[in-house]
This record gives sequence, structure tokens and C-alpha cells, in this order.
Amino acid sequence: MFCFDWAAWKRLSATERAAFANEFSQTLARWELGSADGHPNQSALFSQIGHKGDLTLIHFRDSFEDLNRVELELAQCGIYPCLKLVNSYLSVVELGLYESSEKIYTQLAEKGLEPGTPEWNVGLKEATARTFAALSSRLYPTIPPAKYLCFYPMDRKRGEHVNWYAEPIADRRAMMNEHGLIGRRYADSVRQIITGSIGLDDWEWGVDLFADDPVIFKKLIYEMRFDKVSAVYATFGQFFLSVRVAAANAARWLDGTLATDEAST
Amino acid sequence: MFCFDWAAWKRLSATERAAFANEFSQTLARWELGSADGHPNQSALFSQIGHKGDLTLIHFRDSFEDLNRVELELAQCGIYPCLKLVNSYLSVVELGLYESSEKIYTQLAEKGLEPGTPEWNVGLKEATARTFAALSSRLYPTIPPAKYLCFYPMDRKRGEHVNWYAEPIADRRAMMNEHGLIGRRYADSVRQIITGSIGLDDWEWGVDLFADDPVIFKKLIYEMRFDKVSAVYATFGQFFLSVRVAAANAARWLDGTLATDEAST
Amino acid sequence: MFCFDWAAWKRLSATERAAFANEFSQTLARWELGSADGHPNQSALFSQIGHKGDLTLIHFRDSFEDLNRVELELAQCGIYPCLKLVNSYLSVVELGLYESSEKIYTQLAEKGLEPGTPEWNVGLKEATARTFAALSSRLYPTIPPAKYLCFYPMDRKRGEHVNWYAEPIADRRAMMNEHGLIGRRYADSVRQIITGSIGLDDWEWGVDLFADDPVIFKKLIYEMRFDKVSAVYATFGQFFLSVRVAAANAARWLDGTLATDEAST
Amino acid sequence: MFCFDWAAWKRLSATERAAFANEFSQTLARWELGSADGHPNQSALFSQIGHKGDLTLIHFRDSFEDLNRVELELAQCGIYPCLKLVNSYLSVVELGLYESSEKIYTQLAEKGLEPGTPEWNVGLKEATARTFAALSSRLYPTIPPAKYLCFYPMDRKRGEHVNWYAEPIADRRAMMNEHGLIGRRYADSVRQIITGSIGLDDWEWGVDLFADDPVIFKKLIYEMRFDKVSAVYATFGQFFLSVRVAAANAARWLDGTLATDEAST
Amino acid sequence: MFCFDWAAWKRLSATERAAFANEFSQTLARWELGSADGHPNQSALFSQIGHKGDLTLIHFRDSFEDLNRVELELAQCGIYPCLKLVNSYLSVVELGLYESSEKIYTQLAEKGLEPGTPEWNVGLKEATARTFAALSSRLYPTIPPAKYLCFYPMDRKRGEHVNWYAEPIADRRAMMNEHGLIGRRYADSVRQIITGSIGLDDWEWGVDLFADDPVIFKKLIYEMRFDKVSAVYATFGQFFLSVRVAAANAARWLDGTLATDEAST
Repeated sequence: MFCFDWAAWKRLSATERAAFANEFSQTLARWELGSADGHPNQSALFSQIGHKGDLTLIHFRDSFEDLNRVELELAQCGIYPCLKLVNSYLSVVELGLYESSEKIYTQLAEKGLEPGTPEWNVGLKEATARTFAALSSRLYPTIPPAKYLCFYPMDRKRGEHVNWYAEPIADRRAMMNEHGLIGRRYADSVRQIITGSIGLDDWEWGVDLFADDPVIFKKLIYEMRFDKVSAVYATFGQFFLSVRVAAANAARWLDGTLATDEAST
Repeated sequence: MFCFDWAAWKRLSATERAAFANEFSQTLARWELGSADGHPNQSALFSQIGHKGDLTLIHFRDSFEDLNRVELELAQCGIYPCLKLVNSYLSVVELGLYESSEKIYTQLAEKGLEPGTPEWNVGLKEATARTFAALSSRLYPTIPPAKYLCFYPMDRKRGEHVNWYAEPIADRRAMMNEHGLIGRRYADSVRQIITGSIGLDDWEWGVDLFADDPVIFKKLIYEMRFDKVSAVYATFGQFFLSVRVAAANAARWLDGTLATDEAST
Repeated sequence: MFCFDWAAWKRLSATERAAFANEFSQTLARWELGSADGHPNQSALFSQIGHKGDLTLIHFRDSFEDLNRVELELAQCGIYPCLKLVNSYLSVVELGLYESSEKIYTQLAEKGLEPGTPEWNVGLKEATARTFAALSSRLYPTIPPAKYLCFYPMDRKRGEHVNWYAEPIADRRAMMNEHGLIGRRYADSVRQIITGSIGLDDWEWGVDLFADDPVIFKKLIYEMRFDKVSAVYATFGQFFLSVRVAAANAARWLDGTLATDEAST
Repeated sequence: MFCFDWAAWKRLSATERAAFANEFSQTLARWELGSADGHPNQSALFSQIGHKGDLTLIHFRDSFEDLNRVELELAQCGIYPCLKLVNSYLSVVELGLYESSEKIYTQLAEKGLEPGTPEWNVGLKEATARTFAALSSRLYPTIPPAKYLCFYPMDRKRGEHVNWYAEPIADRRAMMNEHGLIGRRYADSVRQIITGSIGLDDWEWGVDLFADDPVIFKKLIYEMRFDKVSAVYATFGQFFLSVRVAAANAARWLDGTLATDEAST
Repeated sequence: MFCFDWAAWKRLSATERAAFANEFSQTLARWELGSADGHPNQSALFSQIGHKGDLTLIHFRDSFEDLNRVELELAQCGIYPCLKLVNSYLSVVELGLYESSEKIYTQLAEKGLEPGTPEWNVGLKEATARTFAALSSRLYPTIPPAKYLCFYPMDRKRGEHVNWYAEPIADRRAMMNEHGLIGRRYADSVRQIITGSIGLDDWEWGVDLFADDPVIFKKLIYEMRFDKVSAVYATFGQFFLSVRVAAANAARWLDGTLATDEAST
């Protein structure tokens, strides 16, 4: 996330501004296209609302080296002295295994298999393999084309009396399952990408929500706040809301115009 | 909220200052007038007291895109290099449904209707429809013309022992009702607009109080501090106090004069 | 509270420094004199110790508009680019009503009156009227001429188990009474002005202590720390210590000399 | 940890940049070589990911004076005005004595010795001497050549109910032992250096993890989060992730290229 | 504590640097000499390790006015624009009366005197007088000449369940006594000066430790962390470590050389 130094930008000559805007747009366009080995739409630009930043860049990359290279490449652009880096979040896409293992157990039970029997074991093995194959494609998502982005980091509480990490796994799984049910009811209007950052950044998880109607973020998170895992065990960081700006519209943003039409088409 | 860089402002020539002040006043005046489809008075300027900022702008808009466009438009103004954006709050107007549902139940009871009977059901349906029609107009308020503004964000506590989100809805409704009674006693002297920001900004709610006598803010909030929902469950952010400056007086403010007469007439 | 930019000040020419020092001194002198309607000594300058600020200004005014006007007037002074506003506190003078009502009850009891009797009621009414008349003069104090100022903001604790706002008023009154007894023992050497800021600034109260011997601040506050209301229910903000600089000595301060002789005479 | 001022760097002439890059690379190369008395690889440069810094320097030195001398030497380099020091951590390498004393007791027990007997005492003395000789070499480690660095500071909790420092040593030893077992399972892929900083810096310990695959940091720390000493007693500071840059590649970094090949060979 | 702006310093001409270094050294040398009435070594300069500051100045003075005068005098020096004041701590030297009263009681008991007898009373009076005479000299210490300084501020905990200020004095005395015993065992290698700052600065106490071997700070504070008063009731601020620089070596520091030989001789 960057604050944009409009005063410095305006001090540049019109020629410099045009050249830097062009270079910035082309760099973004290349990043949007993605890599040669088939990962499209790997970076996206957003116009942030409020004082916590003006522009947000999301980068999906296959290695931390490549993320660092994106940073260094941007720093060589002519526009960079107008961009003040004020925030960032480093994490890896993570899949809720609580949920998928729950699903497998349910499906096996629906088939009438009993835990511990040879049939159950075979079924478990097959289902697990299928699930992992399906999940692994979700580990390398493209950036959803929705108009709005809501990002926030979060922790599980480790208090003196209430401590997620001291709860039995069965309780944690049940709570995560209830939590997941709410998310699934919103699946049509909100696309969520959960990333894990234990050992990588200051919070344990990052949540990216993508939607065309931003009020849906509020409804979803308000409703979740009453499920047990959020009510009792969640600790939230700052919330950041921004509007998608397609690479093709980046230059117009630098002229002071927010053009969002192209973003979700 | 912006800190105003008086030194940079004074370094400008008198001609530049006059031109920038004029541009700023006209922009504000246009925003005060509101939009073509009938929302008047959509933005307001305030002169903030203390070191947390010098100027506050409130914007009521129908979409987050439009709020972001206001930011970008202001950034293109000549005065912008003298404005340092130091704070902001993003939220949507919210109505206390605890309170209105309480009111409906009370009215039905006063009519002698018993819960669950067909008459009660019809009455509930009608009252709900009426209430929502009335409330929906309150969802798009104009900015009250009062002289003083008090703004603060707040959360409901989610502690290890005291946790609003783990309380039964009946208890929450009763507490909100007691809370609302205090607010209503002050309704003549304080206009309050509550906004929700779960998923949008760092606190759960924003409170905007408007009054001609600022000491009333202190009396109201002190009295509320002893009601149960505030005493036990409220967590407060920073408090910001400012004085209304009509667009017509913006240029005088930039000359160092606080002219407030016009604001509340 | 302001940090003073000595480097910027020294970059000015000697002529400019003399002119700006003169303008600043005269503005302060006028503010010290007070208003036409009889409030003397309404502003005072202090030289702050340590990195949290260099100069502190206290302003007593009858309205928040007037406080804001003081800010704007100072911002027009030539010295202003050397003053970096780093802190402030907005509050209104407040009288401890716990204490005065306690006093009335004691006096009535000493006269042999019994609560609820007509004589008691008459006595209560008269004493209350007398008290309010006396107190109202204390609502508009002048700034004490003492050499040192100690300022800190504070809250009453609203914890999960220890919560001032959930205590019965009789217990709060008894604790405030014990607290007040300590303050009264120091009345000869420390003048205290308590201000309330609920709804106005980030803490609930501001405490201004004035004394000629600053070690007395430490003794007083240490002793108070063991009374119940402080030990159990107080939460303290930052502490700020500064030395009075009379308007007549402001120019000498700007030359690097702390002259304090005149302050307390 | 330093933020790198790319704008200032680009404002330098190509000649200056080349000279300063050369001086910086040579200084780093000398520090990498280590001291005359046989401590190789005493400093290392890393390219940091995110807004918390751009470049990280680790220095292993035998005295705090020498660490301060490194700071002063760097401050004399031509590149220094482009380096903004934003973070640091001061600590001394520390060995987990809980673990080694546990090991000794286990080995003595395996030999059939009983605590308190003369044979046990002799065995304890010998084992302790051997252990300390082995450990002392670990007190002066070289910086591991791995590609990625994860650093974070941590405390043991001293809460009102959960307080590490009030637990019996036997319980603390058992918990540290469980904790150490997890670490040892990751020993092939993660090299960890624990440093103590009680009395030296703001947290009690600093943890440096070195690995070629950074996702292993996440796995290790996530797994540890459920062991008792971490789940209940750990408090974590910020997490910092960076990529090794060999001195030989420092000049390329200053040209905007992250070259990491040489680092781990 | 000051950050030193090396870039600004290097931008000065060699002549200016020499003049400013000379002025700074002579000012420090005068402050080291102390006052006319016999307080030697009243100020000392330290080179701080890490990003929290580059130079630390300690000033022992008999009044807060004099401390403020030191600040103002330094601000007039030519070097001042290169010094950015980032931290400070204001406090008065304080003696542990818990400890000395304990000592008196022990000595009286060792003489076979029983509490309450006339002999005990006489002995108590004499011992108290002797103790205060001895202590009062310790109230005006000189700055110890040791090579390293460790400074940190601290509070006694005032939690919801654990509250130092709500404990009986006998328990507090017993805990402070245990605490003091550890300190005394380190008396040969660490000189400690405890200062009180209730009402003066943001923490309740400041701790200054002076030693020639800085690892001893870590050992001492680690050992203390397990005594009850620290384990249960202490809250610590930031820790600052720095190396003494004699006034005679200040100019060499400004050339980038840490010369510490002279400091402890």
C-alpha cells in the first residue's frame, strides 16, 4: 500500500508525467497478464479509500524471491519517488483443511461407511486424494475481477483464559465448520482468499474479500462476528477498503479520475 | 481530517492563495449543494480543535466509488499540497434495529395484541413495513447544520470474560433500549448519526454528534457511560471536536479567521 | 504543546527573529491580560522538559470557538513555522461534586439535622445554593502563577472485573472523598485544576497541577497512588512537566535563556 | 534494518553511484570474511520483503563496542544518506540450557546411575564439562548460508494468571523439552540461532531462522504454536522475512536486481 | 537521546565541523567537571547501539530549571541541527527506603533489642538518623565511570487481579528485600541508580545500570525476573544500551571513531 505524493507528481513536467504514467501502466499490464507458465492476472492495482493509503498493489507469485523482485522492479520506475510505501502484507494462500476433512467424513458417513472398517479406510484414502487434487488448484488462484477489495489481517486469541491453541482439535474443527457455513452462504457475492502468515508477517492470517457490492463485506463480517470462533477467538487488525483500477485505467487515475467500468467486465 | 501546512500556504504568492482559496470554496459550495437527484448538503467543512488535525471534511455519498472520487478531486485542487491527510473514517449510515423492533413490540402490546395470534402477526407485518419505510429515509440523511461536531469510533468489547458477541440477543436488545432512552432525552439538543464500519474501517461503529452547545456532548456521553451497554461493553477510540465552517467562510478561515455565524442559520 | 525548530529559527535573519519574537511576546502579553469582561491571565507559556515538546501553551477560554480562534491567531504569527504542534488537550474545568455533596451532608449532620426532616430539607437547599454559588466562581479560574506545571490525562478503569462505571454511587463517593482528603493536605503547596474531557478528547479527565517545588508533584501523586480510587480504578496517560515563562521573558527564551524569576512574583 | 531511499540514490550521478556501490560492496565483503582471529562470515546482507525495511544487516561480533563500531563505520560510507535506519535488535547468542541439562540427566539414567550416588555425581560433572565445551563452540556461530532469513523477537508471558516466571523450574524444563523436540525434527531444513536480550533490547529473546525454503518457517512456527510453552506462555513481536544477498551481489541489488544464486553455494 | 543526522553533518564544511565539534566537546567537558559547589561529573555522553538513538546524554542537576537550561544551552550549539531529540526521561534519584528500614530492624534485632522497649526506640532513632545522613549523600551521586550504560523505565503492575498498590506494606517490604538481595550480590560489577518519576514522566521509575561488562546486565535482570516483585508486579518499558564516550573523545566520535579507552580510567 502506497501513499501517493500528488504534490511531487504535479511538480513534474507534463512530459515526465506522461512518460512515467505510460511506464507504470505497461508494467502493470505485463503483471496482469501473468507469467509464461500459465498463471494469469498475477498483480492488480486498487485505489484505496481514506488516509491509510492511496494505491494498493496485490501480487500473487510462486516464490518470495519473485515478490521481492516485483518490489525492486517497481522501485526502478520513474513514478516511484511519488509512491511512499506505507504498508504491506506477506503471506501464502492457505486452504481450510478443517473444512475439507469435515466434508470427507460427512460423505463417508452418508455412504453408510463406519469409521475404522476397511471400506471406510479405502474411501478415506480416495476422498483425500481427490480433495488434495482439487485443493491444489485453489492454491494458485488468479485475482478475482471484482470491483471492491476488503483486506484485513487477523489472529486467533491466545489470552490467559481464552486460548485457541489450547483447545482440542475437535472443538476447533466444529467451530471452523460453523464459520465456514456462513462464508459459503455468501459465496455467490463474495470471493474470499485466505492466506497464512505465521512466521512471515505480524498477524497469523490475511483475509482478502472481493465483491462488486462493498456493503456485502459489512454484512458478511457482521454475521460472522457472532459465530463462536470469531466472537470468542478472533483478534482483528486494521481493515482496508479499495476499488479496482485496471492497468488500462492507471493513467487516468494519475490524472485524478477513477474509472472502474472495465474492472469487472 | 487534514493538518494544514500554514508555512507552505504563506510561502505562496497572494495571487496563488486567492486563486486556490477561491477554487477550494467553490468546490465545497458545489459539494454542499449536493447531487442532481436530490441529496442536498452532502459535504461539510469543519475547523478542528487541537493537534489531531486542522480541517475536517465530512462526505455523505451513495457509493464508495463516489467517496474515492471526492478524494481524487480534492487532490487535484491547488490547495492540496497544504493539506496533509492524517485521519479518515469509512462507514455507512446505520439504524438501530434493536430499538425499532422494541418499539413495534411495545405498540402491539399496547393495542392489546398477544404474540402469536393472527392479529398480532398482521400488526407486526404492517408495523414493520411502516418502520422500514420511515427508517429508509433516515438512511440518506443530510448533514445537520449545527455549529459543533463530535466524532468518535467505538467497538463492542470482546474480552475474555465480557463479550458482547456472546450475549443473548434479548439481553443485547434490553441494553440497547436503555441506551437509546438516554439518547432520546437529548434529541432536542444533539442530533446523532450512527454509522457502521465492520469490515470497512478499524472500529465497528462511528458516532457523529451535532450540537450548537458542545458541552452537551460531554453531558450526554458522561451520562451514557453509566448505562450497562457502555459501562461494560463499550471500547472507545479517539474523540475529535470541531467547529462548522460554511463553504462561504472557507476563504476567511484560510486568512486565519473563524467565522461561524452563517453555519447554523 | 509544540516542538521548537531551533534550526529553522537560527536560519532566520536577526531582524526577522527580533520582529517575530516581539510579535509573539506581545500576543502572549495580551492573552495574559485576559478579556475585557474581567477574566485575567487567560493564557500562559511554559518551557517543557524533555523530548515530548519544547513549549506548552495553556488557554482558558469561555467557548471552544475562542480556543480555535487562539489556534488560528497563533498560526498567523511569524514564529509559527518554527512551532510544530505535537500535542494538545481539550477539556472543561470541572468541580468535584462528590466532594461538595459529602461536605453538605456532614455539615447538616453536625448541626444535628436528620435526613428527611423539613429542617434538613431547608438546610440542604440553602447549603446547595451556597455551594453552587461558591463553586461557580471556581469554574472560571485564572492560571495560577506557580513556577512549575505538571499535566497528565487519566481515565477511570473499565476492565472486565474492575469497572468504575459499574460501582454504586455510594462507593464511588466514599472513594472520591478519601482521594480528596489527600489533595487537601497538599493544598498549600499544590494548586490543582481538574478538567473533564469525556466526549471532547481521548481521556476522561485532565489534571493540571501548579507548584513552586516540582518534587511535590511526585510526593502527592505517589501518596495518592495508594488510595483506593487511584490504586484500583485509575489509568494514567503521559505526564508532562514544564517551567513557567512569563510573556515578558518569552523573547529571552527564544535567545536560549530560561528566565523564571518574574513568573511567581 | 534500513529503508532504502531509491529517489535519493537515483539523484546521485552514475559515477557517485558506482563509487558508493563499490565502497559498500567492499565493506560488506570484508565483514563477510570475518576477523583475523578466525571468526568467518561475521556480517550478512539481506533484501527485506515488504514495507518494514528494504535491507537487513546481521552482525555477529564479540563485543558491543565492536557492534557500535560497525554502525559508525557504515555511517561514514557514501551510501549512508540513502539508508534510513528503521529497526535493530541487540542480543547475545544463547544456548538452551534447559535442553542440555535434560539430555545429561537422561544419559545418566540410561547408564543406570541413580541421582545422588557418587557415580552419578562423577558422571554429572564429566557430562557437564563435555556439554559446556561443545556448547561454547556454538556460542560463536557463523551466519548460516541459507537463502532466507526469518527474524522475530519474543517474550515469555507475565500475565495476571499465566506467568512463566512464576512456574516451577521442573515444569518450565518439561515444556522447553517438548518445544525443543519440534525444533529438532526440523533441524535438517531450518537452522535456528536463539539470542537473549533481557536487559539489552525491548523483548526477551530474538529468534533467527535460516532456511532455503521459506514456507518451512511457517510450518515450523505453526506446529510450535500448539506446544504448551508457545501456546500458553509466548508473546510474539513483529516477523521479518528477507532474502540473502551476498556481498558480491550488493552492487546488483543497487541496480534493482535481486541475484541470489551465489548465496547458498 | 538523539539520532545523529550524519548526512547533514557531512554536508557541513570541514571548518564548520571542526568548530562545532570543538564547541560540543568543550560544553561536554565543562558539564563533566560539574558545578562550583562541588558536584563533579554532572553530565555524560554515551554512544547508543541500534536504531533507537545514536547519542545519549545523562544530566544530573539539582533543579528542573537547570535541566531545562541544559537543554536550551545545547540547542544553541552549532551541532544542534544534526541532533534529533527522540527520547528523554525525567526523574529524581530515589533511595530504597524499604531496604534501609529492613536493615535497621535487623541490626536492632541482632543487638538483642526488642521492639517497643525504650532501648529499641533509642536505637531506632539513632540508626534512622545515621541512615538518613548516609543516604542523603547517595541522593547526589556522580555519574559512575563505567564503560556501559543500560537504561530502562518500569512500573509496578496495577492489574485487575494483581495490583502492587493494593498489597499490604509488609508484603511489599518483604518482596523488595528479596529483590535487593540479588542487586547486592552484583554490587561489585554493576552500579545501579534508581530514579523515581511518578508525576514527572510516563513510567514510575527509571533504572540506570553502569558496568564494564554489559553481559552482566543480562545476567542480573534475568535473575531478578524470577524474584516475586519482578515476576509478578513489574512492567518494563524499552531497554537502551550505550557505550560511554568521554568528552575528550566526542570529536573522534563525530569523525566516526568510537574511542572508549579513557572512559573507565
